[in-house]
Amino acid sequence: MQEKLILASKSPRRRYLLKQAGLDFVVIPSEIDESGFSCADPEDFVRDLAESKALDISKKYPESWVIGADTIVLIDGRVLGKPRNKREAREMLGRLSGKTHWVMTGYAVRCEKKSVSFCDVVKTEVLFKELSPEEIEWYIHTDEPFDKAGAYAIQGLGTFLVRRINGSYTNVVGLPVCEVIEFLIRHKVIGLSLDNRRDPSDDPS
Amino acid sequence: MQEKLILASKSPRRRYLLKQAGLDFVVIPSEIDESGFSCADPEDFVRDLAESKALDISKKYPESWVIGADTIVLIDGRVLGKPRNKREAREMLGRLSGKTHWVMTGYAVRCEKKSVSFCDVVKTEVLFKELSPEEIEWYIHTDEPFDKAGAYAIQGLGTFLVRRINGSYTNVVGLPVCEVIEFLIRHKVIGLSLDNRRDPSDDPS
Repeated sequence: MQEKLILASKSPRRRYLLKQAGLDFVVIPSEIDESGFSCADPEDFVRDLAESKALDISKKYPESWVIGADTIVLIDGRVLGKPRNKREAREMLGRLSGKTHWVMTGYAVRCEKKSVSFCDVVKTEVLFKELSPEEIEWYIHTDEPFDKAGAYAIQGLGTFLVRRINGSYTNVVGLPVCEVIEFLIRHKVIGLSLDNRRDPSDDPS
Repeated sequence: MQEKLILASKSPRRRYLLKQAGLDFVVIPSEIDESGFSCADPEDFVRDLAESKALDISKKYPESWVIGADTIVLIDGRVLGKPRNKREAREMLGRLSGKTHWVMTGYAVRCEKKSVSFCDVVKTEVLFKELSPEEIEWYIHTDEPFDKAGAYAIQGLGTFLVRRINGSYTNVVGLPVCEVIEFLIRHKVIGLSLDNRRDPSDDPS
């Protein structure tokens, strides 16, 4: 069976975002080895990773439209990955406390059969409130920081950490939904059928 | 039974936000008549309404902490309410298309017994993408616009409408969570117990 739209990411946050937007898709995570990508330029890094994830799955499903993405957190020119232990989580949250950082998501959309390949990077500024040591310990204790870049989830318990953002909110969660949907509509991957957007194959456009 | 924390709003969005932040609370909506409030100054309007909702429930539950809130959408100095029909929804979405508007939430937290009463207004700028007539019709067709100020829900299907925001995201959903939780921690209404924040009565602080 040929899937029309594939999310090449195992992130439950990205899946949630696309579901929230009413899209019909399947999840087939890319298994590429990320260790070979250079982190020298953060923007190139997330773009290359997003592209490689989309390409990996595109090769196996050439008729499908595939979305790949990668998100990083940047502060003072330094990339914060996923904390491996409490010490790293504590260090990251302390660094983010009371300051503005950047969240960068590279996203790629491609379809082999149609020879369409697109890639871009969206950046959002995020301002954290000042965190007390007790707040940091409490948040670490919830276990939420451990599989998140920068040690927090804006859409989870970590919502209390974020005072304001400047840019795309969904980009901070893991995928710039406005931009992705705009692209999919432009290429008629999803339609605006008044019957049911969830089944784009029904769309006469 | 005396509830510790009460949300005096029937909005499912506000309930969702507080649950997402891990709070333990009950919902007892205020039934005040909103028609008597002057809309001459939008900031005063949401502040007064939030305060009146909190006061209404506070009088009935004087030992509880009560949260009241009201949210409006403002563009070109005009307040957009909830659309009553397709024509109004179409008109509002057309007005918001491709432009920046403001979302203002007034929130009040009070406890009669402790003589604490606080009220503030948080403002967020929201930029919509350019909407095609087809996109507007599709969105209206989903029925999502009809019980929402400004005819959209940023946390629903309407996520595709919003290109960027400047300010608090949760404020656009209906309650500035970072500010509310900061207040509740400062007044020891909720604690940072490492056992369980969801049961603040267990907190020794």
